[in-house]
Amino acid sequence: MDWLDEVRWDPQGLVPVIAQESATGDVLMFAWMDREALRRTAETGQAVYYSRSRQRLWPKGEESGHVQQVHEIRLDCDNDVVLLRITQLGHDPSIACHTGRHSCFFQRLEGGAWTAVEPVLKDPAAIYTSKA
Amino acid sequence: MDWLDEVRWDPQGLVPVIAQESATGDVLMFAWMDREALRRTAETGQAVYYSRSRQRLWPKGEESGHVQQVHEIRLDCDNDVVLLRITQLGHDPSIACHTGRHSCFFQRLEGGAWTAVEPVLKDPAAIYTSKA
Repeated sequence: MDWLDEVRWDPQGLVPVIAQESATGDVLMFAWMDREALRRTAETGQAVYYSRSRQRLWPKGEESGHVQQVHEIRLDCDNDVVLLRITQLGHDPSIACHTGRHSCFFQRLEGGAWTAVEPVLKDPAAIYTSKA
Repeated sequence: MDWLDEVRWDPQGLVPVIAQESATGDVLMFAWMDREALRRTAETGQAVYYSRSRQRLWPKGEESGHVQQVHEIRLDCDNDVVLLRITQLGHDPSIACHTGRHSCFFQRLEGGAWTAVEPVLKDPAAIYTSKA
């Protein structure tokens, strides 16, 4: 059986994906993949997601240069969530978030309010206009 | 503004949640919360999820005793994914997965096949009949 057939795709043909930095253990982002995205991720060793807003494949880093090198692909007990162990390339210290931060999970609940607790490492305007 | 109103709930009123063990950085599981589950998690300091299959609140560990103590609640850049930093209680070494394994992400893609790479720490039959 094809390993892609063992994934339990949701009604939209997608699976949620968690990207974890292998060197630090930090959870960097959460996104979605369709079958083609997961196949290409496994084949190329670079993360390819499916953008639900743009409704197309989204090779991570295609605009920002913040490519993710994939070391390991894991599947959960229900076969419906994927975990990637990656190295986040393109900037040092690493940036996964479109806000220019290391991780997308930079808001922490503190005293009943979401508070940004991680610094912007690079101005998003500089990240996304560099190839324009 | 109520911090719960800032979460972008999906059309079903749910948000995806990643549970990460704070001591090890291991990603233990992925589940969903509705508004009430997230509110109770913040108030009690113990993870309460929403079970989509049973369509009700699911206090993690209610059957297994494998309760999750929540140290930190984070929200991503799009306000639509939650990350919990937790201590997984109830067994040493810790068990988050209903299969009796440490993490739900115990299947690794190896040579085109999903392969279980983490041991069963406790027989699920012993986990789930202990209170029956």
